Amino acid sequence: MAANPPPTRSPELRKDSVTGRWVIFSPARAKRPSDFKSKAPENPNNNSSSCPFCIGNEHECAPEIFRVPNDPNWKLRVIQNLYPALSRNLEYPVGRNDEPSNELGGWNQVVPGFGFHDVVIEAPVHSIQLSDLSPSEIGDVLIAYKRRIEQIKGFDPIKYVQVFKNHGASAGASLSHSHSQILSLPIVPPSVSARLNSMKEYFNQTGKCSLCEVQSKDLLINETSHFISIAPFAASFPFEIWIIPRDHSSDFDDLDDEKAVDLGGLLKLMLRKMSSQLNNPPFNFMIHTSPLKVTNSDLPYSHWFLQIVPQLSGVGGFELGSGCYINPVFPEDAAKLLREVNVPI
Amino acid sequence: MAANPPPTRSPELRKDSVTGRWVIFSPARAKRPSDFKSKAPENPNNNSSSCPFCIGNEHECAPEIFRVPNDPNWKLRVIQNLYPALSRNLEYPVGRNDEPSNELGGWNQVVPGFGFHDVVIEAPVHSIQLSDLSPSEIGDVLIAYKRRIEQIKGFDPIKYVQVFKNHGASAGASLSHSHSQILSLPIVPPSVSARLNSMKEYFNQTGKCSLCEVQSKDLLINETSHFISIAPFAASFPFEIWIIPRDHSSDFDDLDDEKAVDLGGLLKLMLRKMSSQLNNPPFNFMIHTSPLKVTNSDLPYSHWFLQIVPQLSGVGGFELGSGCYINPVFPEDAAKLLREVNVPI
Repeated sequence: MAANPPPTRSPELRKDSVTGRWVIFSPARAKRPSDFKSKAPENPNNNSSSCPFCIGNEHECAPEIFRVPNDPNWKLRVIQNLYPALSRNLEYPVGRNDEPSNELGGWNQVVPGFGFHDVVIEAPVHSIQLSDLSPSEIGDVLIAYKRRIEQIKGFDPIKYVQVFKNHGASAGASLSHSHSQILSLPIVPPSVSARLNSMKEYFNQTGKCSLCEVQSKDLLINETSHFISIAPFAASFPFEIWIIPRDHSSDFDDLDDEKAVDLGGLLKLMLRKMSSQLNNPPFNFMIHTSPLKVTNSDLPYSHWFLQIVPQLSGVGGFELGSGCYINPVFPEDAAKLLREVNVPI
Repeated sequence: MAANPPPTRSPELRKDSVTGRWVIFSPARAKRPSDFKSKAPENPNNNSSSCPFCIGNEHECAPEIFRVPNDPNWKLRVIQNLYPALSRNLEYPVGRNDEPSNELGGWNQVVPGFGFHDVVIEAPVHSIQLSDLSPSEIGDVLIAYKRRIEQIKGFDPIKYVQVFKNHGASAGASLSHSHSQILSLPIVPPSVSARLNSMKEYFNQTGKCSLCEVQSKDLLINETSHFISIAPFAASFPFEIWIIPRDHSSDFDDLDDEKAVDLGGLLKLMLRKMSSQLNNPPFNFMIHTSPLKVTNSDLPYSHWFLQIVPQLSGVGGFELGSGCYINPVFPEDAAKLLREVNVPI
């Protein structure tokens, strides 16, 4: 906490119509928004000596799923996770999903841990970070996510695919070589259900998709032909960013090659701006899309987006207990700073 | 990750009937449960030179609410937080809670940040931790929470009171002098609504309160006259502990003096066991109780409890995106270790 916080606005609680989450905006607890810097910036070049993700060390990895291009000089690889959170080798008893277990938990539900846990190695060379790649190369990574999701769609027990990236040890990355992860789940996770319920409620009240609505200029950061980036109205975290397709699209895997390059350029720009403004913080990004087994393939109220969260502070008892977050930076202040920061591209 | 993880059970997903949350149990990602130790143990004696919470430095703190006993030789103090997340000085426009805002977010909801953010200084001396106090002294801290909640009940805009403790810098504590916090909110937070909905569903299906049901012996850690401690069936975190009153009670402030001492003893035992087993980890505890403005004062399905979470690992993109947690330790394994660990009391 700063010894003399600047004069600030009153605190405010906001509920987001997309996530359904309440957030406390509490500027009095913070330094100025422009003073936010990561205390634990990432050094992208550490631990390169014996990295299993580097080109030439493929034999140290779990089995490969595919590579692009399909020759020894690959630019990206999709492989199995050596320590998967879920197992691809379990027999999945059909229908068990909804049956209660009586062994330990009485009425509590148990589902066998069947699923796929894949890793996307985003570049062959250790020192290259995702934001160092060209828009077209980042587009290739995004298209690899899409291709893997399309393969997984064939497995009936899988209900949702969570694509995410952990950058930096304190954001959960156990290896520093640039990579992201694809975890395919036999359930629709709670945040996804809550988001769909919240967006459905908005749609029922207004007749509109909450992410198709024109966003306030105050929250806009940048825009491209097919995407916009914003600081969301009720951001849970300081300098949280959402990248949203302009046209209504409920599924990430609607992405085509042209839009992938466009998204690659905006993602690169946002990661560079965040890194410049916040001193190369650890960060996560997550793709929020629709569940796989939805019969109506284009839900009128579901609109996919990519969320970027710089890890600037940890989670304490209040957040764990209440599910509310305290954010010291109003999103309109974060958007203004991120709009104006200049980065080399 | 261990180089050679021991042979383990298959992964499993469990949904808790109290929180309504899904958790992935994934033992293959972990070392043995008995090998879990904190990498960042807390040194309780740091930074004592100029601590505003130490006896004699009362003038450095925000205004006091009450002290026990009410004389210069206090044993605990309840004070205002110098950097409150919510403001006690805002005028609260009655009825605004449900009105949409059109300035920034269209249909998004905004509530003024009215509320109370209090600190409970648990001991007058810097080096004393909560688990060093006697059961009766910890009971006094618990009764101070109750007394403050009873004061706050008179304020109509307050809908929920979140009591929590952050121990250790990485668990969110900004000062090392032993303290806890009471944050009084003008909303019912999302985790509380989800918990009440889940417990209500269980009640409607079974006619019983999910926490009154006899817990499996495999999950039990210790018990006293009025409380039991368990590793919950679908623990989100390794070595998470719940302390539950034996008799049905929907509100924490039902606690009387006798039960407070009994709970103080069990809380002390759990904190000591956790510290011994896990090498004095940073931790949080949270009291989960009923909202304030419930007309039926004893909800048949709501049962308060105290949750203890050691902070052994951070949160990554998967947890942020999906709201699911990955727990490498099955609760029955954690319960067995915590049952058997011997600690001096």
